[in-house]
Amino acid sequence: MDEQKKLRIGVIGGATADSKFRKIAYEVGRLIAEKRAILVCGGLSGVMEAAARGAKKEGGLTIGILPGTSLQDANPYIDIPIATGIGYCRNSLVAMNADVLIAVDGQFGTLTEIAYGSIYQKRVIGIGTWDIQGVIQVETAEKAVEAALKEFHPLAS
Amino acid sequence: MDEQKKLRIGVIGGATADSKFRKIAYEVGRLIAEKRAILVCGGLSGVMEAAARGAKKEGGLTIGILPGTSLQDANPYIDIPIATGIGYCRNSLVAMNADVLIAVDGQFGTLTEIAYGSIYQKRVIGIGTWDIQGVIQVETAEKAVEAALKEFHPLAS
Amino acid sequence: MDEQKKLRIGVIGGATADSKFRKIAYEVGRLIAEKRAILVCGGLSGVMEAAARGAKKEGGLTIGILPGTSLQDANPYIDIPIATGIGYCRNSLVAMNADVLIAVDGQFGTLTEIAYGSIYQKRVIGIGTWDIQGVIQVETAEKAVEAALKEFHPLAS
Amino acid sequence: MDEQKKLRIGVIGGATADSKFRKIAYEVGRLIAEKRAILVCGGLSGVMEAAARGAKKEGGLTIGILPGTSLQDANPYIDIPIATGIGYCRNSLVAMNADVLIAVDGQFGTLTEIAYGSIYQKRVIGIGTWDIQGVIQVETAEKAVEAALKEFHPLAS
Repeated sequence: MDEQKKLRIGVIGGATADSKFRKIAYEVGRLIAEKRAILVCGGLSGVMEAAARGAKKEGGLTIGILPGTSLQDANPYIDIPIATGIGYCRNSLVAMNADVLIAVDGQFGTLTEIAYGSIYQKRVIGIGTWDIQGVIQVETAEKAVEAALKEFHPLAS
Repeated sequence: MDEQKKLRIGVIGGATADSKFRKIAYEVGRLIAEKRAILVCGGLSGVMEAAARGAKKEGGLTIGILPGTSLQDANPYIDIPIATGIGYCRNSLVAMNADVLIAVDGQFGTLTEIAYGSIYQKRVIGIGTWDIQGVIQVETAEKAVEAALKEFHPLAS
Repeated sequence: MDEQKKLRIGVIGGATADSKFRKIAYEVGRLIAEKRAILVCGGLSGVMEAAARGAKKEGGLTIGILPGTSLQDANPYIDIPIATGIGYCRNSLVAMNADVLIAVDGQFGTLTEIAYGSIYQKRVIGIGTWDIQGVIQVETAEKAVEAALKEFHPLAS
Repeated sequence: MDEQKKLRIGVIGGATADSKFRKIAYEVGRLIAEKRAILVCGGLSGVMEAAARGAKKEGGLTIGILPGTSLQDANPYIDIPIATGIGYCRNSLVAMNADVLIAVDGQFGTLTEIAYGSIYQKRVIGIGTWDIQGVIQVETAEKAVEAALKEFHPLAS
């Protein structure tokens, strides 16, 4: 199947996260890969690394869009690291490069990504994250990925 | 006095705003100039233009950091337009180039700027805007500028 | 093999190019894929499209880093389009995301990428392009890819 | 006079420069201010600092567009530092924010700025710098500023 046409699901959340949220992010990543979607994230640690690890466990493809200039900054579960060298401006690119976003936990960096998601008209699903207008709040990884897919296959849900 | 050392107050808010918020933004801009601070904003219409108009009424200095590549995009009350050509990534620069931010009304673009403000450790004062952790909510232009100045001259307040 | 560890060769050149240079770019792309390296380019038409088409002919992997906000701007031979929304600033990212660069023809956009390549300490090989200090000038696609690989496998050449 | 309408002359060149080129840059900056134009530069040391120092000697206005996130990175002769946090991508902004560019000496960073200048259709004047198609090469600061002004006041020259 054509990689360029595959659904991309972005997973956003903090570079540090407690084990509860890392587990949820891992499961979100695993389910994204199981559904043959591509995982897009910020490429670093915490929620980003847990989601990418989950996706690789299921044989998925992972893209990590990094703030720095070095590909070596990517966590080991990123297939396609993209260095940007533009610092926190890269948060705009994470939102821009996904068709739909799942936010897990997160602080102010995640908030910029949620807001950019709305600017770029991407649906945002949230688990334990900012309670922002338009964000669909769910409780589990399964519900989050299901809600994300529903955006694109409404009859299949 | 050295321009490089002057306090910079950022005013953030939507490119479209109703007359109530444009009046508040105008007054915020006027008070910023009265206090000899520099106004930083996104350089476009709505809250940005109203604040810059207020600042120029009082003889202040205004900087507008634009998303596009043309200086002509700036509203007529901007002394120093800065073109960036980086689209919504410029929201990061608006927050980065102010010492403190005042958010008036606003939608998701403003939300990215509030969040970037927190990332860059700038205090954010809000009037009729997003109710985000850390934002000091006030009711009037006077209270907003007073709260902004208090960050830098705690004994003078 | 781990995608994150694979050699990345950037192909830079104009969005418009005559058939001679498109043929060279196609052959450069084909040889990059034959050598199991990843092709990185700007994702648009001309030299970028010809190189990506060559790489896909050989079953390679292609990354296209786009100036605009839409993945749809990518040419059909890009597996992994990355939208940036930062305009010509994306030229910096093309250079940053390759281990070595091959410049084919090109105008001023290509010149920024050659210069960014030097800033980021990437070797630049040139075919019919700018005659800039440090650029290794060659005549054919074969010589270009050979010179690019020599940077990383000096004993194998 | 309206600051927004004033001619802006960009001075580009290395962060390190020998005394010969720092003297030329100083004189270029001084003449820019004497002609009531605004000096735009990258805000750091070397050619940028020398030009800004020259402009301030004559009471001019100086804008420095910085690669980092801190206004403190600006040299002391910058009136309006603009932090960007986008690294070498800021070179695009230096070119974009000037009406005409004068390159003094310089290495690969300067080369990106010369090339961006051509992309954005800004005339580039050079003193002891890259010999690139389209760059008007001159020998002295006086000739450089004269050539820059001629772009905008053809009958006055």
